[in-house]
Amino acid sequence: MSVLVVGSVALDSVETPYGKVDDALGGSATYFSAAASYFTDVNVIAVVGEDFPHDQIEFLKERNVNFDALVTKPGKTFRWGGKYDFDLNQRETLFTHLNVFEDFDPILPDHYKNIPYLFLANIHPDLQLKVLQRMDRPKLVVMDTMNFWIAGTPDSLKRILKLIDILIVNDSEVKELSRDTNLFSGAKKIQQMGPKIIVIKKGEHGALLVEDGNYFWAPAFPLEELQDPTGAGDTFAGGFVGYLAKVDDYSQKSLRKALIYGSILGSFCVEKFSLAKLKILSHEEIENRYQQFIDMTRFY
Amino acid sequence: MSVLVVGSVALDSVETPYGKVDDALGGSATYFSAAASYFTDVNVIAVVGEDFPHDQIEFLKERNVNFDALVTKPGKTFRWGGKYDFDLNQRETLFTHLNVFEDFDPILPDHYKNIPYLFLANIHPDLQLKVLQRMDRPKLVVMDTMNFWIAGTPDSLKRILKLIDILIVNDSEVKELSRDTNLFSGAKKIQQMGPKIIVIKKGEHGALLVEDGNYFWAPAFPLEELQDPTGAGDTFAGGFVGYLAKVDDYSQKSLRKALIYGSILGSFCVEKFSLAKLKILSHEEIENRYQQFIDMTRFY
Repeated sequence: MSVLVVGSVALDSVETPYGKVDDALGGSATYFSAAASYFTDVNVIAVVGEDFPHDQIEFLKERNVNFDALVTKPGKTFRWGGKYDFDLNQRETLFTHLNVFEDFDPILPDHYKNIPYLFLANIHPDLQLKVLQRMDRPKLVVMDTMNFWIAGTPDSLKRILKLIDILIVNDSEVKELSRDTNLFSGAKKIQQMGPKIIVIKKGEHGALLVEDGNYFWAPAFPLEELQDPTGAGDTFAGGFVGYLAKVDDYSQKSLRKALIYGSILGSFCVEKFSLAKLKILSHEEIENRYQQFIDMTRFY
Repeated sequence: MSVLVVGSVALDSVETPYGKVDDALGGSATYFSAAASYFTDVNVIAVVGEDFPHDQIEFLKERNVNFDALVTKPGKTFRWGGKYDFDLNQRETLFTHLNVFEDFDPILPDHYKNIPYLFLANIHPDLQLKVLQRMDRPKLVVMDTMNFWIAGTPDSLKRILKLIDILIVNDSEVKELSRDTNLFSGAKKIQQMGPKIIVIKKGEHGALLVEDGNYFWAPAFPLEELQDPTGAGDTFAGGFVGYLAKVDDYSQKSLRKALIYGSILGSFCVEKFSLAKLKILSHEEIENRYQQFIDMTRFY
């Protein structure tokens, strides 16, 4: 089945202890679709400026990512700049220039409206709501958010939360959104806000799936060398939603495999700057890492 | 097979958001042996003062914990006081009164010298070395340490590290001891200091076993209610070493199961203050939680 993603297509300037890139390809929709394209075809809604280097997304078009709804507007492309500390766990945002993203109104082509799998990347919750309302209700709606919207636009966030199936957040966002210091009771409180399924990203500590009383833990892949964590969360989401769309099923069994595929794609993403690794990643590498996840968790 | 543990038997005063205890039973050897006693018989070397309430360890004696080498010295028992913050992740040590522990010289009865499984709890590395040297070389030597010894007595620590098989530490200790910001390359550096196997405790994020290129992740049990994290690490070690001694094997397969049993015992420990839960825990509860660990990690 197809996936629709709304999010950013951006140019990132990133500095880590391992190097530095300027105006490199980035954005939540870009990372997401690069990962999801290993599993199914992906359709993007986003906006870029006249300065956007379209040749840089050619590799995605070749992998069945459809950019019919990538609008080019007068002005500059959304730019983000950040710097990571020595162990890559803390980052400082140096600048966020929304540019053409500022008054982004996501217009859906007719052939996008009945796409069954929808991913609402981390953008203003009112924009997320707008996209959802302009579609026939998809089979599965998955959403990301962040502390900026939890603190800044709580009412908007609560409106969209009521309408989605799966929320993907990190552990501190669970605690902030639920106002609970315990991750597990916090997740339960968020389930009462709408999404029946919560996916909790724990970075170097793995990921956790919560559905009813059911917990599933995916470990993080043991990487000795990371270059750039930017986009890891969106790449994780791309592997997760891409796999669900491919098998067209979100039973507990499929959700678990999807969490592993999300973790795998995320682990490749951080190995190199920008989308460098996601550009050349092979299906064989993905499946090899899947076997390694089995090896890392088997004890019975 | 039997286990020998050298460590502290102490009285702890602990305050958490969920309550407060004064002079409650504590100490690394106590928590360790309470956990290990679910798997095999345990022999303790430790020292207490004349004020020690011996009736409080009666339940351990009934579970095949042998206190032949628990020496009572004139003076007061080792006391520790600590306070945990709202989410139980940070703790402040309020006081550490070594008392009789200060000039503790671990004397081994002859029938302790050929015990095959040895656990050196978190005490001065010179004391750990003394115990090891006074024994016939055990079949397996497992050791705990902490940042205090890593920073304060690095040469002593390096001497004992050369002689042991398994080191149990937490993730920040791996980074501090190896002087490496990456957990995985850090663990490799520690392996070159002596121990072939590293067990990394990650608290609420689970635990990791490293042997050669081989990684195994155990999740943490999803607890909605914790009362007191004191002793969780020693209890984890007790489940881990206790299981290995029970099956008298430390193949990769047994190490993995041992890590799960360690995690299970640790998860019960934190549910109540002091050893309250370890006092009443049943084998059935342990095995039920083992099944839940299988359920939480199965995806294939």
